[in-house]
Amino acid sequence: MHDDSLGRYARLALTVGLNLQKGQPLLINASTQSLPLVRALAEQAYELGAGSVTPLLHDPAVVRLELEKLADEYLEQVPAWFIEARVQATLDGAAIVSLADEDPTHLRGIDPDRLQRRQRALMRSRRRYLELVGAHAVNWLIIGSASPGWAAAVFPDLPAAEASERLWQAIFSTVRLDSANPEAAWRDHLTRLETRAAALNRARFDALHFTGPGTDLRVGLAKRHVWKSAGATSRNGVRFVPNLPTEEVFTAPDPQRVTGVVRSTRPLNLSGTLVEGITARFEEGRAVEVAAEHGGEALTGLLASDEGARRLGEVALVETPNPVYDAGFLFQNTLYDENAASHVAFGRAYPDTLGSRAGSDGELASAGGNVSMIHVDWMIGSPDVDVDGLKSGGQRIPLLRAGRWVWDGK
Amino acid sequence: MHDDSLGRYARLALTVGLNLQKGQPLLINASTQSLPLVRALAEQAYELGAGSVTPLLHDPAVVRLELEKLADEYLEQVPAWFIEARVQATLDGAAIVSLADEDPTHLRGIDPDRLQRRQRALMRSRRRYLELVGAHAVNWLIIGSASPGWAAAVFPDLPAAEASERLWQAIFSTVRLDSANPEAAWRDHLTRLETRAAALNRARFDALHFTGPGTDLRVGLAKRHVWKSAGATSRNGVRFVPNLPTEEVFTAPDPQRVTGVVRSTRPLNLSGTLVEGITARFEEGRAVEVAAEHGGEALTGLLASDEGARRLGEVALVETPNPVYDAGFLFQNTLYDENAASHVAFGRAYPDTLGSRAGSDGELASAGGNVSMIHVDWMIGSPDVDVDGLKSGGQRIPLLRAGRWVWDGK
Repeated sequence: MHDDSLGRYARLALTVGLNLQKGQPLLINASTQSLPLVRALAEQAYELGAGSVTPLLHDPAVVRLELEKLADEYLEQVPAWFIEARVQATLDGAAIVSLADEDPTHLRGIDPDRLQRRQRALMRSRRRYLELVGAHAVNWLIIGSASPGWAAAVFPDLPAAEASERLWQAIFSTVRLDSANPEAAWRDHLTRLETRAAALNRARFDALHFTGPGTDLRVGLAKRHVWKSAGATSRNGVRFVPNLPTEEVFTAPDPQRVTGVVRSTRPLNLSGTLVEGITARFEEGRAVEVAAEHGGEALTGLLASDEGARRLGEVALVETPNPVYDAGFLFQNTLYDENAASHVAFGRAYPDTLGSRAGSDGELASAGGNVSMIHVDWMIGSPDVDVDGLKSGGQRIPLLRAGRWVWDGK
Repeated sequence: MHDDSLGRYARLALTVGLNLQKGQPLLINASTQSLPLVRALAEQAYELGAGSVTPLLHDPAVVRLELEKLADEYLEQVPAWFIEARVQATLDGAAIVSLADEDPTHLRGIDPDRLQRRQRALMRSRRRYLELVGAHAVNWLIIGSASPGWAAAVFPDLPAAEASERLWQAIFSTVRLDSANPEAAWRDHLTRLETRAAALNRARFDALHFTGPGTDLRVGLAKRHVWKSAGATSRNGVRFVPNLPTEEVFTAPDPQRVTGVVRSTRPLNLSGTLVEGITARFEEGRAVEVAAEHGGEALTGLLASDEGARRLGEVALVETPNPVYDAGFLFQNTLYDENAASHVAFGRAYPDTLGSRAGSDGELASAGGNVSMIHVDWMIGSPDVDVDGLKSGGQRIPLLRAGRWVWDGK
């Protein structure tokens, strides 16, 4: 149906997004539900001169079987061999594309205790790999793929083929593939976000203030915070855009200086549970109370992962409307939903939002960032939520009003 | 359609075949065309108490893209990371199931020079892993999976669903899944093969003599040759049956003492080329002339891999009829076709057919076995080919007549 679109999407991802280098090895993390895009990426990567392409495929049905049937005594053991291979590939400079394609209902009905124990064990086993990727050891990219299960979850009332087609079209729109010249549209868009981040960096705000229904939250910014936008530079010197779509500018909160109350504005998908109507109260940076109208136990379970899990590692400002917001539905996938609204993240900070390239716990902490093995974005912005920048002298500057970016940066 | 059969097949494979141990990690090598069997294996493995299950999935479409589009300068480079991970898993005692499911037409039309260069590079990169498996470092197993592409190649005139169903039914029959008690049928069958191998080991034949249309071949046996049948014991002490189906008893030829002419009795599938009507003349162990009525260049290309590629590493005796022969069609897959007829293999000998557990080149050579990176079975037996055992004193003992095993072993 959309082979040509898939090829153009793959090409855009590998050029504007990943910036795959000639001769560079490429890893593709994907599920067995995304083979059409895996093949399109492989084809485009070879045409761009990739040195090798290695799809690393997992099967959601086997993942579910593992959670259902793996004997309890092995639940917290994860063999290291293939994670170690990913670490080595990363150290050797392989670029990484990961496909976001999860059916948000996929893990429904799994015993939550087993799920949590397994997920923590998986996170521990992947720690070094995630640190390397988070520290941009190489150029990497996450893009969406409209798997049948995901499409069915988003459009439960449509026939399968139509649901897939709708989700693909939405995905293509979010990455501006329907522009006359997508590459040029991306250049303009990236410049706009970079200009915004540069103005925020000049302003050196002490904190952000979010106000709206159920929300009165002051997010202190880390002393050495750096605002980042879409673009990043890897340790091997490649300029890349790690998420397509991307609509945010983001930085590192001070993990000790977040206070007030906040209410989520969009649901959050956590391993198949839709967590809706989250409310949190922060004291001295820590979310001392967290509740949700629905699915709260999935969130609070995750927040028990470690000491840093209840503190913030990211705050991001997103203007609306934008192509993701315009899609008009909840994607039930963070890659998209976080780009439809301003958000914060529980858990680990990104080193580059603290002016650091190093990603170990010690280095992150000494740079003033939050340390955790989790990183969970949740949406707190909407056209009803205003955001101001607060200077240390007390000056207040309106940044977002009715969803729109209103600051001229001067 | 045959979910229950798939489950029973997977169970038989993991018990009678692999003998998966409680707590043992399991790797499953498979293509994306075999997900139903991968899932059935994972489910049964968890029920048998596997410590972990790791599917290692490759996508045939991406493999083909690589051969078509990977830049020439990278064709002989294979990243080591994920092969090294397999080696580590093997050293750590992971059991391995590999699914034979290749569409025999899959690589048709690929430039043969590129194909050979790539395949040699892949073989070099996998050498240590293949050595470990060949030396039974762990329990391992190859079984078939009726992928859509394979089924279509075998039954080109049938509708897709019917072709798959026919191939699955044939696969199930070859592993005696349609017996009233498949486990008991296997016990009997394995005992019969073991008895045959034991008699051959007592006899200590100096050579085998194959005679039939176009065939008059003497295959000298290695001085320290050991006849093996289906069963093997891994270094970690697990008794297993590495191939299902298996109908052969086999041993190591003397790589210097094969003489005469031989004609293949069934086609051989080599990376998508069906090699038919092979004729070979051997002098002092070396195939000095090799030709084929069709597809010969695929074979002679492979035989140029290294010095040992034109010498024999295996000779196997197969009685007919048997369940594989009874299927009545060419599977175009060695796992099956080699069990329909007596055969020999160009290339590497199996250490255990020389009474050795070690698999390195030096160890293999000093045990008197052939050394090569290839191992290509081809069929030389049929009801028209007689096989005699020759004692060093000159005594000749009929072993196979009109396909049937005629020797009482005394």
